Amino acid sequence: MSKKIRLGILGGGSDSLIGILHRIASAMHDKYQIVGGVFNVNHADSLAFAKSIDLPSHRVYKDLDTLVDKELKLPQSERMQVVSVLTPNFLHFPMAKKLLENGFNVICEKPMTTTIEEAKILQKTLQNTKSVFAVTYTYTGYPMVRQMREMVLSGAIGKIQKVDAQYYQGWINPIIHDAKQRSSIWRLDPDKSGISCCLGDIGTHAFNMIEYVSDLKIESVLSDLNFVYKDNKMDVDATVLLRLNKQAKGVICTSQIATGEENSFIVKIYGDKAGLRWEQENPNYLFLMEEGKALQVLKPGHTYNSELALDGTKLPPGHPEGIFDAMGNIYKGVAKAVSNEPYNPAEFPTILDGTRGMNFIEKAVESHHKGNIWIKIENT
Amino acid sequence: MSKKIRLGILGGGSDSLIGILHRIASAMHDKYQIVGGVFNVNHADSLAFAKSIDLPSHRVYKDLDTLVDKELKLPQSERMQVVSVLTPNFLHFPMAKKLLENGFNVICEKPMTTTIEEAKILQKTLQNTKSVFAVTYTYTGYPMVRQMREMVLSGAIGKIQKVDAQYYQGWINPIIHDAKQRSSIWRLDPDKSGISCCLGDIGTHAFNMIEYVSDLKIESVLSDLNFVYKDNKMDVDATVLLRLNKQAKGVICTSQIATGEENSFIVKIYGDKAGLRWEQENPNYLFLMEEGKALQVLKPGHTYNSELALDGTKLPPGHPEGIFDAMGNIYKGVAKAVSNEPYNPAEFPTILDGTRGMNFIEKAVESHHKGNIWIKIENT
Amino acid sequence: MSKKIRLGILGGGSDSLIGILHRIASAMHDKYQIVGGVFNVNHADSLAFAKSIDLPSHRVYKDLDTLVDKELKLPQSERMQVVSVLTPNFLHFPMAKKLLENGFNVICEKPMTTTIEEAKILQKTLQNTKSVFAVTYTYTGYPMVRQMREMVLSGAIGKIQKVDAQYYQGWINPIIHDAKQRSSIWRLDPDKSGISCCLGDIGTHAFNMIEYVSDLKIESVLSDLNFVYKDNKMDVDATVLLRLNKQAKGVICTSQIATGEENSFIVKIYGDKAGLRWEQENPNYLFLMEEGKALQVLKPGHTYNSELALDGTKLPPGHPEGIFDAMGNIYKGVAKAVSNEPYNPAEFPTILDGTRGMNFIEKAVESHHKGNIWIKIENT
Amino acid sequence: MSKKIRLGILGGGSDSLIGILHRIASAMHDKYQIVGGVFNVNHADSLAFAKSIDLPSHRVYKDLDTLVDKELKLPQSERMQVVSVLTPNFLHFPMAKKLLENGFNVICEKPMTTTIEEAKILQKTLQNTKSVFAVTYTYTGYPMVRQMREMVLSGAIGKIQKVDAQYYQGWINPIIHDAKQRSSIWRLDPDKSGISCCLGDIGTHAFNMIEYVSDLKIESVLSDLNFVYKDNKMDVDATVLLRLNKQAKGVICTSQIATGEENSFIVKIYGDKAGLRWEQENPNYLFLMEEGKALQVLKPGHTYNSELALDGTKLPPGHPEGIFDAMGNIYKGVAKAVSNEPYNPAEFPTILDGTRGMNFIEKAVESHHKGNIWIKIENT
Repeated sequence: MSKKIRLGILGGGSDSLIGILHRIASAMHDKYQIVGGVFNVNHADSLAFAKSIDLPSHRVYKDLDTLVDKELKLPQSERMQVVSVLTPNFLHFPMAKKLLENGFNVICEKPMTTTIEEAKILQKTLQNTKSVFAVTYTYTGYPMVRQMREMVLSGAIGKIQKVDAQYYQGWINPIIHDAKQRSSIWRLDPDKSGISCCLGDIGTHAFNMIEYVSDLKIESVLSDLNFVYKDNKMDVDATVLLRLNKQAKGVICTSQIATGEENSFIVKIYGDKAGLRWEQENPNYLFLMEEGKALQVLKPGHTYNSELALDGTKLPPGHPEGIFDAMGNIYKGVAKAVSNEPYNPAEFPTILDGTRGMNFIEKAVESHHKGNIWIKIENT
Repeated sequence: MSKKIRLGILGGGSDSLIGILHRIASAMHDKYQIVGGVFNVNHADSLAFAKSIDLPSHRVYKDLDTLVDKELKLPQSERMQVVSVLTPNFLHFPMAKKLLENGFNVICEKPMTTTIEEAKILQKTLQNTKSVFAVTYTYTGYPMVRQMREMVLSGAIGKIQKVDAQYYQGWINPIIHDAKQRSSIWRLDPDKSGISCCLGDIGTHAFNMIEYVSDLKIESVLSDLNFVYKDNKMDVDATVLLRLNKQAKGVICTSQIATGEENSFIVKIYGDKAGLRWEQENPNYLFLMEEGKALQVLKPGHTYNSELALDGTKLPPGHPEGIFDAMGNIYKGVAKAVSNEPYNPAEFPTILDGTRGMNFIEKAVESHHKGNIWIKIENT
Repeated sequence: MSKKIRLGILGGGSDSLIGILHRIASAMHDKYQIVGGVFNVNHADSLAFAKSIDLPSHRVYKDLDTLVDKELKLPQSERMQVVSVLTPNFLHFPMAKKLLENGFNVICEKPMTTTIEEAKILQKTLQNTKSVFAVTYTYTGYPMVRQMREMVLSGAIGKIQKVDAQYYQGWINPIIHDAKQRSSIWRLDPDKSGISCCLGDIGTHAFNMIEYVSDLKIESVLSDLNFVYKDNKMDVDATVLLRLNKQAKGVICTSQIATGEENSFIVKIYGDKAGLRWEQENPNYLFLMEEGKALQVLKPGHTYNSELALDGTKLPPGHPEGIFDAMGNIYKGVAKAVSNEPYNPAEFPTILDGTRGMNFIEKAVESHHKGNIWIKIENT
Repeated sequence: MSKKIRLGILGGGSDSLIGILHRIASAMHDKYQIVGGVFNVNHADSLAFAKSIDLPSHRVYKDLDTLVDKELKLPQSERMQVVSVLTPNFLHFPMAKKLLENGFNVICEKPMTTTIEEAKILQKTLQNTKSVFAVTYTYTGYPMVRQMREMVLSGAIGKIQKVDAQYYQGWINPIIHDAKQRSSIWRLDPDKSGISCCLGDIGTHAFNMIEYVSDLKIESVLSDLNFVYKDNKMDVDATVLLRLNKQAKGVICTSQIATGEENSFIVKIYGDKAGLRWEQENPNYLFLMEEGKALQVLKPGHTYNSELALDGTKLPPGHPEGIFDAMGNIYKGVAKAVSNEPYNPAEFPTILDGTRGMNFIEKAVESHHKGNIWIKIENT
């Protein structure tokens, strides 16, 4: 009898990049076995895809309802234990809710839902279960992000006074300037994407990252969004002023029209003792700046790192690991939780992170439309 | 008869770093000869300093009034042509005004004055003269900053949609957290420093740089300042949302409590065709990002650079020049203007830049105190 | 019936890092299924390990002979197709040979053998089979290394005149200076490691990389080795002058006592039109230097890359992939070859690369011991 | 009476870049006053140049003999104290010799002479004088190079086991491949340039830098040169194996056909405790690598630096200084020596460095032509 965790996947079929990311991540630590799922809307496509990855067809279901029905009829020892939800955003909520209500553990892509209301309902749903629920803010799986958090918690930088996250991409630029494309792409269609493009897609990462590494809470936001064209309903660029608990202040600068940028996500935190900087495109470096001391550059795999960081590295220093490895670390954390092994709660983002992320999107959009005023983030 | 421009200096005596910077800058292109000045408040100190730099004592004056009196009595061919004002901020205005009124050309340190009103008076004063007036926003003298401007002007990045300047230092951090120091240092004393510390000292550089490289005008600002302690009256950290003409938006992030940062001034501009990035601590690199093309890194001295950039480099590629060379370029530009040689107006910042800088400081402070609202920058 | 390639593994059990690397690499593209192997010398350990990765025990064999016997009795459709050899160096040859003689495809860790003689025998063995044979010079799997090769082949840098590879590590430093350790560690024991430590372990990577990216052949070598202590029989540092075909010259600098270095492998090639540089610790950047043009930095995932490079990237630009992904690309290439799909011969290193690598080690050691003279590399 | 050191200059007229470098360097610390010299071969040119830099014409001499005659007739208190020799290489020796014989202090460009013999004669000449003699290996004036030396001397990296210097340029590439140019340019003409191009021009810098920062002596060399074409008599690329005292080994890799490289001079030293790395194109960073510790990046201006390094920085951290400042530091050191002020002998390179540099060039060329054998460097 296999001891691996039985994993089902919703979405991620065909050439889906997010599907590749999750499949490899799940395979990285010999902890999961994919047993089935619903990979595509069209059942034939789903079956073809399963065949292409050499997965037996009998647990490839035509939809989530069927999956739940059939899996519940299997003995507990065969039933899917974790289901990953990789479908388009608006399906995250109903699917995750149904899964939780039927006793499955859930790994859910971000943004977790499309509204705060949905997020709150999901929180309540989860409270009535024993399930593990993770939201894949992938970047928190990088070892040097974990190290950043642990150093902040250990007091290495003192009391935080300033946080600054930049998340710049350029890929929307050619789209936004093409009248036809900007009115047809689903990313810029509120009915399909929710109320925000840039804040929802990448701003939430910045929000989550700041709270993850600082262990502070963002309490209120004041934002200025840019839609570039009047006929465009979705933000493609946003700057958000932040006020955090413990008197810290900060800023999130995010854009999808920062032409030529790839995925430039940079986080800086300054305390009264030192500062820390991390950059996603070169994730294996963590910069520690102390007044009057040499700049220190920490790298993965060294014993000077925290246990949480070291747990996220597989090879010795100098062998660069990347984003698949970061996601693999999140899957590893979930595996520990599902298997009732001890783990650090910082090994994967939880429903609280997902809910706060939804809060951020809605409040930041509200701030802009009310004339760039401060709006409080609910304390969820 | 010497053909060098006769230069007088106000301030910059003893161990003054700004004095060293200006003296070396003035010597770099064999264009100036320092002939006298008022180097220290105390005349004996001033004389001793003059001796230490081997300057004859007869044109070392006890104060500006004496300098003006005596110099005016010299024949035109011997009289100081340019006077550099390196004194504490509050003296810039009266000194520059007096110099202009008496026919001298002026190089003035930034911030140009302590209020917009002073700046406007100075503008009017200048209009009645034939004098050249330069404000030393030193960073605009770097060749790759000049190249950035020229590329933007040439259309290389298309229509600008986003500007982002970060200027982070950490040196106020140990001061702000020491109750005694923060109540005694002149930098944090409004009577001596004007209404702003961080915005006045480095925020203005960011403001000027954005307008310099983008050729846009910042039209309104919304700021959030941080004073850290209630008994501290001066901002030590500020984030400023920007709206520029031609629909561009942007942000200035500036701090003097970004612990461990040295002088991290980074400017990014994104147009609809490409993006550009420059960093002061590594000033000999200019990054050009174009969607779907390899990142390009431009460096000084290459013939692919603009005339304005090439004029700012003395040695072949690979021989790094630095901040003294940047200031030297500004002095070189002023020398051309004073000598009625042709020059590019972008070779040195003018009184308009100085006035706009004062405008920025006052309006950004006002925005914060009025509750983080948008305030217009006057069109001076 | 599974369509995945049935993979067996020799070695790589327990906490073996090389085992983790190969297992993840084999899983990355949904092409392989591990079906069994001999993971540890001790059969009980092997079985325990198999259980820990959830592998059924019936194809976990007590040794290679048993594996071959039993697998040959299985129908072709169930038999292992590829066997990966991850055992200590001296076992590579006998195991690979036996596997080839019995019709298996082989993925062999480097160095391929311990002597040139063994390598030649293996070459002959292979010629009598239809097997695919790959040597895991992992670094050739990085997309930007592939891009470097393709650009050189396309003529982007012109005729090559200079190659330079540096491979510096520091991990032997604490060992070499400890008399007890340096006489006991297997790495510094010729009976266990062959005739070379530094050249064998990392010098061969440099040799292979130069031939891979330049498409030239290294024809002769002149080396100077460093043993540091007289009682140490193994080189821990080596510099090797190179002469290549087509009049190119070059150098390999390699050390394991470059204290504080992690895994600093840097390759530079200069042609008469341009130069290229790649660095293993930041593998997602390829630097193109052309006289009089801006430095260009190429990154993975962009359409300006060659087909070979693009085939090695899974996610869009800005999502850093790492060394697991590089090894995954080599496994992907082998899968194509085994499945008779079209592939670029540059997708994985072959037995020729392995043999040439052995040649390099022996000749470079010989050069040193004969007084730093030129020794020819056999044209194998 | 001026207290500045009276400086004469030989060469460096018209648009000479080396002239600009020396003039600015001499002006940087208010220590020198240029009083005359011989700037061009043609006296009218020389006078015109003097006028262009606003230098009185009466001490602009038609040749060195005249300069010496006339200066010696001036009272000691007016006579030139230091003369800088910036003429073509073959004139360094006769000019420096004559200057020394007549009691002048000398600053001499590198290479100091064209042969070892000349260098030795110059050494003897100097011994009979009280003159100060400096050779301008400019790069030793960078503050972080000085810091590197001081850290090595303080034992920060332990006993040195490996040195590695790379000096790559690409500017000869277009010349070498043009048959006409390569036979006409003076750089590739042995009659004008001495016996070496690449080793003489930049290899000597690498040699000097290694000895400067390591405080070791290079005892023997084995080189392989590249002339690319048979009709070219001068090396344009060279790799030199090194053996140093105290059992250290190393390598110098140098090229002027490293196409696309600007002035990429990189020095690495590894001891048994740590490693250090410095790069000329980014001269304000010094990398300290210690096994098992975070990488440390030291920068100028911080109090953690040595006195020698701090003396070489004028502004606070974060204000990048460059190559003019490095040369300025060498002039500053010479000024101290000439003025009998206390100074660190490491503040400027001496005649010993110059002689050793000549030794290196001759021996490295000899090694190549004798078939790449080891040649001893004389212990001068």
